[in-house]
Order: sequence, then C-alpha cells, then structure tokens
Amino acid sequence: MGSCRNGVVSGGSNGEIGGGPTVDKGVDFANYFCTYAFLYHQKEMLSDRVRMDAYFNAIFENKHHFQGKTVLDVGTGSGILAIWSAQAGAKKVYAVEATKMSEHARTLIKANNLDHVVEVIEGSIEDVSLPEKVDVIISEWMGYFLLRESMFDSVICARDRWLKPTGVMYPSHARMWMAPIRSSLGDQKRNDYEGSMDEWYRFVQDTKTSYGVNMSVLTKPFSEEQKKYYLQTSLWSNLHPHQVIGTAAIVKEIDCSTATVNDVLEVRSNLLSSITGERTRLCGFGGWFDVHFRGSKVDPAQKEIELTTAPSMDDSTHWGQQVFLLHPPIHVSEGDDLNVSFSMNRSKENHRLMEIELSCDIRQSSGNILPPFSNRFYIE
Amino acid sequence: MGSCRNGVVSGGSNGEIGGGPTVDKGVDFANYFCTYAFLYHQKEMLSDRVRMDAYFNAIFENKHHFQGKTVLDVGTGSGILAIWSAQAGAKKVYAVEATKMSEHARTLIKANNLDHVVEVIEGSIEDVSLPEKVDVIISEWMGYFLLRESMFDSVICARDRWLKPTGVMYPSHARMWMAPIRSSLGDQKRNDYEGSMDEWYRFVQDTKTSYGVNMSVLTKPFSEEQKKYYLQTSLWSNLHPHQVIGTAAIVKEIDCSTATVNDVLEVRSNLLSSITGERTRLCGFGGWFDVHFRGSKVDPAQKEIELTTAPSMDDSTHWGQQVFLLHPPIHVSEGDDLNVSFSMNRSKENHRLMEIELSCDIRQSSGNILPPFSNRFYIE
Repeated sequence: MGSCRNGVVSGGSNGEIGGGPTVDKGVDFANYFCTYAFLYHQKEMLSDRVRMDAYFNAIFENKHHFQGKTVLDVGTGSGILAIWSAQAGAKKVYAVEATKMSEHARTLIKANNLDHVVEVIEGSIEDVSLPEKVDVIISEWMGYFLLRESMFDSVICARDRWLKPTGVMYPSHARMWMAPIRSSLGDQKRNDYEGSMDEWYRFVQDTKTSYGVNMSVLTKPFSEEQKKYYLQTSLWSNLHPHQVIGTAAIVKEIDCSTATVNDVLEVRSNLLSSITGERTRLCGFGGWFDVHFRGSKVDPAQKEIELTTAPSMDDSTHWGQQVFLLHPPIHVSEGDDLNVSFSMNRSKENHRLMEIELSCDIRQSSGNILPPFSNRFYIE
Repeated sequence: MGSCRNGVVSGGSNGEIGGGPTVDKGVDFANYFCTYAFLYHQKEMLSDRVRMDAYFNAIFENKHHFQGKTVLDVGTGSGILAIWSAQAGAKKVYAVEATKMSEHARTLIKANNLDHVVEVIEGSIEDVSLPEKVDVIISEWMGYFLLRESMFDSVICARDRWLKPTGVMYPSHARMWMAPIRSSLGDQKRNDYEGSMDEWYRFVQDTKTSYGVNMSVLTKPFSEEQKKYYLQTSLWSNLHPHQVIGTAAIVKEIDCSTATVNDVLEVRSNLLSSITGERTRLCGFGGWFDVHFRGSKVDPAQKEIELTTAPSMDDSTHWGQQVFLLHPPIHVSEGDDLNVSFSMNRSKENHRLMEIELSCDIRQSSGNILPPFSNRFYIE
C-alpha cells in the first residue's frame, strides 16, 4: 500500500525483521506504522478504484479459494479484505492489524454482521498467535515501487508460520518494472535546487556581514543535503503513458509462495530498453509494479486477476509511479538502446526505505556509444 | 526553536524526562530530534533575523558575562551561540548537540578559528559529562507557543547539573501570551472540514454500492479524526497586529534560573481580555511568547535584550504565532470582556506535544453574559 512519505530518521536499525540487527518496535511505530492508524489514510486506499476492483474481483471471481476455508489477512487496516473473504464464504478469517485501526476494523466487521466469521487481532503478525494454520493468506502489502515499506517481509513471515502446505497466496506473484521516461519534473527540481543554492550563498554572505560568522565551510555539506533532497530522491508521479519513451523492462519477479526475505533484501538487475520516442529527452526512469492473483499450481485461480500500476490514462492508482531523475537529461532518439544496471538495497538507517544505484550505457542507433553514467537514488 | 510539525505518534511515552515513565530514546529521536540534523532546518532558524539579532545583541551588549568565563550551549545545532560566546571572550565553551549536526558545528567552529575555545560534544545534555561547572548556560530552546517540544526540560537539567551557583541563564526569563484574534483561517478550516465530510459521505455510498460493504458505522470516528485535524489542531500563522482584537494577557511567567520541570508540566491560567476591535468576529486566540536576557539578580545584564514573537508587521519570526480557532466565530464588540480559563498539558502519547482546554465567558459591554463555551485544542 502506498504511504505518505515517511521522514528519514536515524535511530532505528534493520531488524531480524528487515534483514539485520533488531528493529526497535517503538521506532518502527514512530517511523512507519503510525500513518495507518488514521481513517483518512485508510480512506485514501479504499478510494483507489483500481486497487479495490482488483482485490474484489480476485476474491469474488475465485470463491472456490474461500468457500468453507480459513483465511489470514495480514495488515487488515479497515478490515476490507477480511470482510470480502467472509462474504465470499470463508468459514473463518483472522484479520491481523498492528495499529489501533484494528478497533475500527472490529466495529466495521460487526456492523456488517460478520463478527461470527472474522476475528480481528491487534498486533504484529510476527508476534501474534493463531489457533490454526490457514488456507489463504491475503494481504495488500505493496508500497511505492513494490518494496518500499518492506511489508512483504511480514507476509513471508505469516506464510512460513501460518499457511498450510496446500495454501494459496493472494496475490500470488509480483513484478517490478522500469522504463525510460520524459518529464518536466527534472527541470523543476533542478531549478529548485539551484534556487536553494542561490539562497544559501546569500545567506552565507549575510551571516558573515551581519553576525561575524563564516559559514562557507558548510556549503559543501549543504549542497549535498540539498542535492539528495531535490535531485536524488525519487518522486511520486502519475505518469502519462506518452511520457514513457522506451520499452519497459522487468526488474524483479517474485513468487509469493516461495520468496524469502533474502530474495528481496537486495534487488539487482540488468535491464535492456529501446527508445521508442522520436528525438526526445531521457529525463529519467519510471518505476512501478504489478501483482497477479493466480492461486497456486495445485489450486489455481479460476479467473486470473491482474493489478497493475503501470502508467495509464484512465486506470491510475494511489501508488502512482516512482520517478528517478537524471541531471541533466540526455538527448535520445528512436532505436537508441539503454543497458541499465540496477541495484536496490534497504537504507541502513531505516529498513523500510531504499537506496538505489543505477548505471546506464547508451548505444545510439548510429552505433555510437555515449559515455556511461551512474547515479544514486533514495526512496524515502 | 520552531520545528516542522512532528506527526502525532503513539509508541513513545512521557519520561523522567517529560515528567512520567521513561521516554524511549529511539522513539524520541524518530519523533523529534531528527529534523535538527538537517542543515536546511538550521538555516531556517539562522535566517530568522529577529532571533539572530536578539541573541547576538544579548551576548555582545553583555560581554562582561562572557569574558574569561565558561559557557554551556544546550542544543548548539550549527554552533552559532557557542561561536558568539567565544567571540565575546569566553575562556571555554561546551557546545552540546544530540544529533549529527554536531559534526557540522565542529567543522564550523574550526573554520572560524575557535576550536581552541569551543568543544563540541555530541549527545543528550542529560547524558553528557562536563569537566566543570559553568558560568553561563545559553540555549535557544523555545518552541511554538514557547513550550512545544518541551526542550526547556533539558535546559533545566543542564542548569541543575552544570550551572555554578553564581551562574547566569541566557535567556533569563520567558513568558507566554494570548490574545483574542480575528482570522480567515477559521472559515477556511471549516470549509476544509465540511468538504472532507462531503467526500466521506460520497465514499460511504460508493463503497456500499460498488463493494457491498457498509462503512457508515465509521462516520463518527472519521468525523472526530477530521474535526481534530481541521478544527482543533492549532495552526502556525504570522498574524498581523490588526488581527489582534483584544488586550493581550500573560498566560505564564518563567524565571529560567529557578523554574522546575513541575512548573512547566502543566500550565493553568485565568486570563482577562477586553475587546478593542469595533464590532468584529472573535475567530479564536493567538498564542506567542517572549524571552528576556536580564542576567541574574547578583550579576545583571548591562543591557537587557528582549526577543518577542508577538504579532508584528516588520519583525516577524519563524515561530509565527499559534492560532486556536473557534467554530463558529463569535460576534463581539469593543468593551466586551473575556474571562478565559486556560489549561495546557503534555500529550500522553508524546511529551513534546500539547493538549489544551480553553473555556471562555463573554460579558458584553451591555452587561449581558453570553453562554460560556469550552474547547479542546492540540498543539501537534
């Protein structure tokens, strides 16, 4: 699920959850969970038609997975997936939610006359105890560019502890995609950065003149801080398909029934993309994801449903896409080939945020090879 | 110092710092300290001319307090106050800073050739050890409406541990003020709230129709959440003096050399204010503060400096004022008398944020007494 931008904070650390030393729960709550306790935030996600339709159809077009079965909803939020699971005929649904939103879920479930089927449990899925294993694990865990928030770790944990060997994951598969894009955001952010530096130089001058303190030694760290903020931090955007100027490539494929935390700790990929736009500017890359509800090999879906967050005119989602900007943009033409080396890891300070290294070779359609470039990005 | 609005988070709790059970340091860092690690934020405060002038003049017009003396700067940030103290002739300055901003302070101090005088210590003032007691404790600790952020607790701790009996506090005194105001923000927020509720009702209808789930039971908690957000949370504003429609009253007076944490845990006050505006709307109350640099009784300032954040045309500060809105506004006239009962406590979830109860009696100039009203507010 998309989330409002969490601030960057040190003080937390990666966990056995998170793939490193223990994540402090209080810090994790302050950094991450807290936004989900707000009804306003839940409503944002519940108002995402594409998201809602996908899960609704995935469930109700595949009732055989739910009728008479036991279900676990990881991160139930308002309880919507648990409610649909029960309405689709589940015998029992465990709806786990870490925040006080669980109380609203309980209220909602009772008001919809499903409290005899759905049991809301407040707590982290890593900590709670269920009385039995389940036939289905359903969860809407996807963050920006799929893995921001690292919530999939919790789904893996739930699967390993609570899914029967014959059980089914909803969704069953997930993929990360990237494509070269054009965007006016690059110019905007470049201007913002330069405006910020102009202001800084005036500030240094004033502080020297008025207050007798020479702050010029801080220019370098200030510019690095501002560069990171304006130029290197990925942006949320709702891209128009026309902004995609080259072929999209799969960065990562995940089988939700077998993936381990290790599989998603680091995402490394080589991508090939051909420019399809005619004499245009490569302003950066757009990243998005899709998930599929295919059931399992032994118990497949009757109707396979897809939820995609690819750039779309009519079917945009609250996730938008993540935009990684290049400064300056690069002039490219139809037929130019990009060879992109992509590497994404979790931030040391906060395992729910990401750091990316992206290198790119461009072979122009003429055969000429442009000098390669390398950029660091942050998903905050 | 003013701070960007910290989100409301549970998970932390009030501390022996904070006046209750232990504050978790990691949570406190995630909620509070982290913003101060950014140079951009330091620059915001360093660009506040009124703030800078006040401290600059307080120090350089009172060099006798600094020459040959030892100084402790609590929460040094970029190091500015420590640098000025050294430039004013201090023999030794201890500059304590909890965040990694301390590294920039160290760089800045060295670049200004003061590293033989100023020693930067990274850590919380509650934890660090100094080799000696000091003659002066200087700190810019003030938050919105003075006490937001509860940083004064740390200054009190520093004073009790490290200030010589003959020592001096910079600033020496602080006051909170309130006045009745008019403001268009009330209408704005009222409209925002009502727009949000209109959208909610459409959402409930759509969710019932499209997805078979009746969310009307969540209308009450949603409206309470939205009411708190739009109507009851104090706003930052830079009030024009003309918006102040009645006499300002002192809410609290603090002597920084003797105040205890207990003195500031709860702020209770009865305020009288007379309306000075002619047939106007009482839209709410504005809250601000001032501090004074008077030295001590035995070692007074040669020149007393004031730093005020009262509504001003030319001398506004980054603190602005805090605005507490009434819904609906009340029609008042010149000569109407307000009897305000004010009570402010720390939020249970986060000791750096505040909860306020404000009750008001209005006696019109005719003698007629309007029904009293009572409001709860949140400083987030």
